[in-house]
Amino acid sequence: MSYFGNINQVKFEGPDSKEPFAFKYYNPEEQINGKSMEELLRFAVSYWHTFTGEGSDPFGQGTMVRPYEKFTGMDLAKARVEASFEFFEKMNVPYFCFHDFDISPEANSLSETFQNIDTIVGMIKDYLKTSKTKLLWNTANMFSHSRWLHGAATAPNADVYAYAAAKVKKGLEIGKELGAENYVFWGGREGYETLLNTNMELELDNLARFFHMALDYAKEIGFDAQFLIEPKPKEPTKHQYDFDVATGIGFLQKYDLHQKFKFNIEANHATLAGHTFEHELRVARINGMLGSVDANQGDPLLGWDTDEFPTDLYSSTLAMYEILKNDGLGTGGLNFDAKVRRGSFEPDDLFLSHIAGMDSFAIGTKVAQKLIEDKVLDNFIDERYSSYKEGIGRDIVEGKADFHKLSDYALSLGEIENKSGRQEHLKAIINQYLLNAVRG
Amino acid sequence: MSYFGNINQVKFEGPDSKEPFAFKYYNPEEQINGKSMEELLRFAVSYWHTFTGEGSDPFGQGTMVRPYEKFTGMDLAKARVEASFEFFEKMNVPYFCFHDFDISPEANSLSETFQNIDTIVGMIKDYLKTSKTKLLWNTANMFSHSRWLHGAATAPNADVYAYAAAKVKKGLEIGKELGAENYVFWGGREGYETLLNTNMELELDNLARFFHMALDYAKEIGFDAQFLIEPKPKEPTKHQYDFDVATGIGFLQKYDLHQKFKFNIEANHATLAGHTFEHELRVARINGMLGSVDANQGDPLLGWDTDEFPTDLYSSTLAMYEILKNDGLGTGGLNFDAKVRRGSFEPDDLFLSHIAGMDSFAIGTKVAQKLIEDKVLDNFIDERYSSYKEGIGRDIVEGKADFHKLSDYALSLGEIENKSGRQEHLKAIINQYLLNAVRG
Amino acid sequence: MSYFGNINQVKFEGPDSKEPFAFKYYNPEEQINGKSMEELLRFAVSYWHTFTGEGSDPFGQGTMVRPYEKFTGMDLAKARVEASFEFFEKMNVPYFCFHDFDISPEANSLSETFQNIDTIVGMIKDYLKTSKTKLLWNTANMFSHSRWLHGAATAPNADVYAYAAAKVKKGLEIGKELGAENYVFWGGREGYETLLNTNMELELDNLARFFHMALDYAKEIGFDAQFLIEPKPKEPTKHQYDFDVATGIGFLQKYDLHQKFKFNIEANHATLAGHTFEHELRVARINGMLGSVDANQGDPLLGWDTDEFPTDLYSSTLAMYEILKNDGLGTGGLNFDAKVRRGSFEPDDLFLSHIAGMDSFAIGTKVAQKLIEDKVLDNFIDERYSSYKEGIGRDIVEGKADFHKLSDYALSLGEIENKSGRQEHLKAIINQYLLNAVRG
Amino acid sequence: MSYFGNINQVKFEGPDSKEPFAFKYYNPEEQINGKSMEELLRFAVSYWHTFTGEGSDPFGQGTMVRPYEKFTGMDLAKARVEASFEFFEKMNVPYFCFHDFDISPEANSLSETFQNIDTIVGMIKDYLKTSKTKLLWNTANMFSHSRWLHGAATAPNADVYAYAAAKVKKGLEIGKELGAENYVFWGGREGYETLLNTNMELELDNLARFFHMALDYAKEIGFDAQFLIEPKPKEPTKHQYDFDVATGIGFLQKYDLHQKFKFNIEANHATLAGHTFEHELRVARINGMLGSVDANQGDPLLGWDTDEFPTDLYSSTLAMYEILKNDGLGTGGLNFDAKVRRGSFEPDDLFLSHIAGMDSFAIGTKVAQKLIEDKVLDNFIDERYSSYKEGIGRDIVEGKADFHKLSDYALSLGEIENKSGRQEHLKAIINQYLLNAVRG
Repeated sequence: MSYFGNINQVKFEGPDSKEPFAFKYYNPEEQINGKSMEELLRFAVSYWHTFTGEGSDPFGQGTMVRPYEKFTGMDLAKARVEASFEFFEKMNVPYFCFHDFDISPEANSLSETFQNIDTIVGMIKDYLKTSKTKLLWNTANMFSHSRWLHGAATAPNADVYAYAAAKVKKGLEIGKELGAENYVFWGGREGYETLLNTNMELELDNLARFFHMALDYAKEIGFDAQFLIEPKPKEPTKHQYDFDVATGIGFLQKYDLHQKFKFNIEANHATLAGHTFEHELRVARINGMLGSVDANQGDPLLGWDTDEFPTDLYSSTLAMYEILKNDGLGTGGLNFDAKVRRGSFEPDDLFLSHIAGMDSFAIGTKVAQKLIEDKVLDNFIDERYSSYKEGIGRDIVEGKADFHKLSDYALSLGEIENKSGRQEHLKAIINQYLLNAVRG
Repeated sequence: MSYFGNINQVKFEGPDSKEPFAFKYYNPEEQINGKSMEELLRFAVSYWHTFTGEGSDPFGQGTMVRPYEKFTGMDLAKARVEASFEFFEKMNVPYFCFHDFDISPEANSLSETFQNIDTIVGMIKDYLKTSKTKLLWNTANMFSHSRWLHGAATAPNADVYAYAAAKVKKGLEIGKELGAENYVFWGGREGYETLLNTNMELELDNLARFFHMALDYAKEIGFDAQFLIEPKPKEPTKHQYDFDVATGIGFLQKYDLHQKFKFNIEANHATLAGHTFEHELRVARINGMLGSVDANQGDPLLGWDTDEFPTDLYSSTLAMYEILKNDGLGTGGLNFDAKVRRGSFEPDDLFLSHIAGMDSFAIGTKVAQKLIEDKVLDNFIDERYSSYKEGIGRDIVEGKADFHKLSDYALSLGEIENKSGRQEHLKAIINQYLLNAVRG
Repeated sequence: MSYFGNINQVKFEGPDSKEPFAFKYYNPEEQINGKSMEELLRFAVSYWHTFTGEGSDPFGQGTMVRPYEKFTGMDLAKARVEASFEFFEKMNVPYFCFHDFDISPEANSLSETFQNIDTIVGMIKDYLKTSKTKLLWNTANMFSHSRWLHGAATAPNADVYAYAAAKVKKGLEIGKELGAENYVFWGGREGYETLLNTNMELELDNLARFFHMALDYAKEIGFDAQFLIEPKPKEPTKHQYDFDVATGIGFLQKYDLHQKFKFNIEANHATLAGHTFEHELRVARINGMLGSVDANQGDPLLGWDTDEFPTDLYSSTLAMYEILKNDGLGTGGLNFDAKVRRGSFEPDDLFLSHIAGMDSFAIGTKVAQKLIEDKVLDNFIDERYSSYKEGIGRDIVEGKADFHKLSDYALSLGEIENKSGRQEHLKAIINQYLLNAVRG
Repeated sequence: MSYFGNINQVKFEGPDSKEPFAFKYYNPEEQINGKSMEELLRFAVSYWHTFTGEGSDPFGQGTMVRPYEKFTGMDLAKARVEASFEFFEKMNVPYFCFHDFDISPEANSLSETFQNIDTIVGMIKDYLKTSKTKLLWNTANMFSHSRWLHGAATAPNADVYAYAAAKVKKGLEIGKELGAENYVFWGGREGYETLLNTNMELELDNLARFFHMALDYAKEIGFDAQFLIEPKPKEPTKHQYDFDVATGIGFLQKYDLHQKFKFNIEANHATLAGHTFEHELRVARINGMLGSVDANQGDPLLGWDTDEFPTDLYSSTLAMYEILKNDGLGTGGLNFDAKVRRGSFEPDDLFLSHIAGMDSFAIGTKVAQKLIEDKVLDNFIDERYSSYKEGIGRDIVEGKADFHKLSDYALSLGEIENKSGRQEHLKAIINQYLLNAVRG
């Protein structure tokens, strides 16, 4: 049975194509520095936005018209799996990601819920045998149900905490069963609404205990996926503990978890925290903790997570610059944690939006790769910091300086000469590279 | 000679007073939990905003009419010192704070600059012999001069780095000479304008080296002041490395500096980073790193540091709540890093604004103390987290739980019952305490 | 039958009361300048947040536990009406407000939907015969159903436009039937998601046509309620046409609608537009267009409409200052367009939150009234602008000046002397008035 | 004498050029729809940022190294004029803009100030005789001097108001003398810091009186330039009256000024007001009030006016789309109200930054023109709104519908069918057009 029968296999047709349902820039087989574009980008489809999302918003009901909506309950869940693998294949994506309740509905009891999940997991496992598409990561939804209203692993209620542990335990088992390459923790309810009723210290201690228990259990069952924290500063919670990458690093260090976790960085979460996407990637990269990416974009004039499909080529270029400098994402990938707009409610929009996103990152990859090949920024930066390669600068870097030496040196200096940072010119060069990258 | 001859000693006159130049709520001798209000609050005047500031803004020249403006150069610097101690005495403040170039103008060479500083430091030292007012902290201005345009201890230019070291070396000597109880680092230029030209990793490594050298030198000269980092996310720089307290903790931990540094937390910097003032205080407090406070407030609708005098009683109450819970600020204090509005350009406004700020914190202290005495929030929170004091909750906290135990427990649960967080009611109680605190 | 049986009639008990379910500051019978507090404040309960809202958010399902949730469909709708009038009576509020679909569920066809509404309207009409509580305003929900996904009166689809007209036609009839004193238009979907697909000019023209037709129909049926536009800049739509009061005034003037419309101003909508609540009230007031108020508050650090119950006494004071200066709200009132937090899910929280809000506005009223009585701001402002009462200033105001006269005058001036705006001192006075207002 | 001797005439060299000091995309002679690029874009250099700006910021002194800085006073002013025309010629720009005090320093008295201005205006007039570069607009600086601290034409002090009138009177005379094609009003101090001390009604009335007097005087002296208001929501003032275009339209309509004024729209001012640049252009365009443009860009993560040179090609494309749809800017132009970053302090950066900006708008023009030629958006929009061209939709637009007719129609409808807005796909098409536009 076909759910997206009107759409054929999406193929690369090149930048002059007028065909909406074709890649203009993403050619999976194109080689970039010894890897195929497909291997390098490791695109993933988000199950929740693409197959479970309904298009509702805080002021409106769902709008999405989906071909499997005639089903309900477990039948719907099964139909979604069928539709999803049809979609993966037509889009030619190597990965997908899910929360437990994206694939299977919550039942009346936890044990029944787990049985439902097992059913769907079994079905997915069968698909994985023949599909090229694999599971990039899975996670547990610990934010939708009312039980999480005050938190999960930071809940003031120990029963809730235990329930969260049961969910993550199951999640780790699912991940192992399906060969997930990573396991993600997004703590949308881990934070506070008001400090007036919050014991922040206990909540953070408990969160760290939770992560240690998760690591222990993964080790026990031999699930060696990379653990990833996904920072987000706020929404739905007023303040979320995993505010941004830097906050996460501090937390992980304090609780001796930093050797075991990396970050899953989302573009729109970065901007909500007051950072650029590339900033978050850079901070993670230079700390060796760049794990995976939720590739989307926000609206800089809106104060909430819009989770738009990424089309801004500046953002995709600068993100790929960090990723290429990181020598790729390892077990991570580029997951489209992005939803079609509420007004883009037709099934066709799912294809068109993924094409938009995949093409955008393909372009970004080409531009970033060319910038790196030509050492455009590297040369500028090398020259800019060259004073640390000799004399007093080298002493500083090599730990051979102290305040006596530096002060004596400074007192001997005449007027210090700085050089322009050339920000505008560098941006013009980025534009030129952007426009030239696909001129062929 | 008197610079503020029209203003008499500012005294406490109580909440019914119509006298503008009197405290209505701040009574230095009033006892709060065994300490005088003066000992508890440790108010400090910021030399820069109060005596050096001119009222300029990005679109306008200075407006301030100051009684010592007939002088120039070192004469002006000396007149400012005289005026400042007259002001301290009339306002009855126990502390003040300064950057090196607030008290003494920059000269043509670094050595001459240092000589100028020595002259003024000598003059201040004489005043300190007889004045009740002491030096809370000093710091080095490494952001105003054009030499810092790309940073100081994170500059791409090693000469600039050395120059910064010379300045801080001198600053530590000044601090020792004047008995400063803390030494502050605010890195207004330590960050980047664009990642395109920035080696973030080297810059952060260099910053850590700088801090270690500063600690070594302070130890060498026997200056045992508390070192404080003052986080600010942006402005003047696009991104500043000391983004917020959590970021600072991560940085300090990574470079093994966290035992030696605490934080100087500014209200308006908190809000620019997307946090409440009390959030930043709480994060520092539960990490044992709440050092001192820059007491001001921002305008939540404006995106820059307005450095307004604190008059919001919610903010002063919630800040004092954290500070009282911290058992005070230790060697730190409440420094009014606040400037009179550009339109409040008369000398009288300096008095009126400090009165506004001091009264606001006095009220905040009374309200917070009463909330603590009555255990208003403590009791609510104790009850809210009570499940961690027994059974499975206690196991979690005591490290006796793992995912097996928790999962089994969760599977045995029926519907989990949560309780209301009562946010609105708690806020109404805060209002009631606020209004009742000074009813006498 | 009682839905809120555990709560008794909420009464005024004064500022020392420890009783949670009592007013500490709102005494309906207290006289303020010749009117009772009840007559002056005209509090209204929002049916949607209080009786229909479920506590869901973009990442989570409903949490609210309501005593009528055992019912469904029209039975639920009827139970809600019963519960609502019990609530109105226990809270002693004089008004309520609703959207059509708050009171009655949408059916399969528009005609059936209208029949459902008629049933509930009939039931409400019976209640109104004996209840003291009246209908402040009603409106039509033209944002929740998927049909409105591209707009209602600005939809690109004429069928949708017609459907919206049918809904408003019905809404006007309901308003007349129930004696509504106002009719509100909130255009949550009237705007655009992207200019790329939007004919803004046609949409705005159509919106104006719609308003003219609504006015015509109200006149035809003899419904003389005040029409109110409720500005909001964004959310759910990326850009909403009724961005703020000033934008609304421009629109209404352009299309010759400004004589017939006033504004319903919401605090949190003001802040989302970059304004203070009091700013929006002031702009409406000086244009004679301050109609009614949605009394809530936002979180200045969050970028979406949090619709919190108003507890900030600065905001309630400055809002009431504008309202008292407007000589009250005429046919308008203070509607609590506020929802209990998702974590405040118990029925008790509905009472506690309304008490918090009503007390806050009662305090604001007392403080504002005292400020006005004592001419605290009026005298300062009169003096500040006194130069426009004589000489060249009077010439300017009376239209007797031109650039020749003014330039000649300016050339004859020496240095111009300005006076301090005294912002900090005025804020300190507000604090003093706030703290003294309820000292009795 | 040459001030920029190291730079030769900047020429068009095409998209493959590696020469920093050359246009890669801006070819002044290239024909776009019957006009040369130069005629169409009408680029202007901002005198203030380019020749007077020093690179200071709220925390730092000037950094700019300018070749005429050895001069002071009127000699500096004259040297700047010489340098500016050298710059105009080398950059081949057809226009420039200035505030009075950009070109000539303020003196001790207004009359002496005017004499200074006359001297420089005479000098500029001589240059204009032979230069191709003309004056796009001039304006009066009524925000820098301390006298404007409470406003200019909205000052609480009538003397200040008169002084402002004298300045604008002189400005109009200068504009006439130099053949300015527009006259701009930017009210950076026209607003308020706090409502507590503000008579908003009087201030707005006075502002309208001021504009009427300005119009009268311009008519009297035969100066027929287009008057332009430049909206900005805030900074330096907390709230500025000319908040955005929509607010400006309301103000102009109320005071019967809307026939005589258009808008000068700045990109970064748009974003500070919560709008996109293209939104502000669209609102002005559909009201026939799009006058001129300040072409710059802001940083969406910073809350102040960064006035960066425009390099974002999305922004330049969408801006040019509106401008081309407006059939150009009439007497207006694209003024680079943009400053080199504080760290881009070398004279070379002035050239590099203008090249970056001019190339960005050249690209935007090409992309926008191709989008228009191919009717990419027009066709989509025509189809999307096609229901208003027949049947009930046409009745609505032609004023032949009322609520009876529309309601009857709606009741007869079955389920309404909407169509996808295709936002993501449209954005992908924009990317494709962007990348293809300069492929040649």
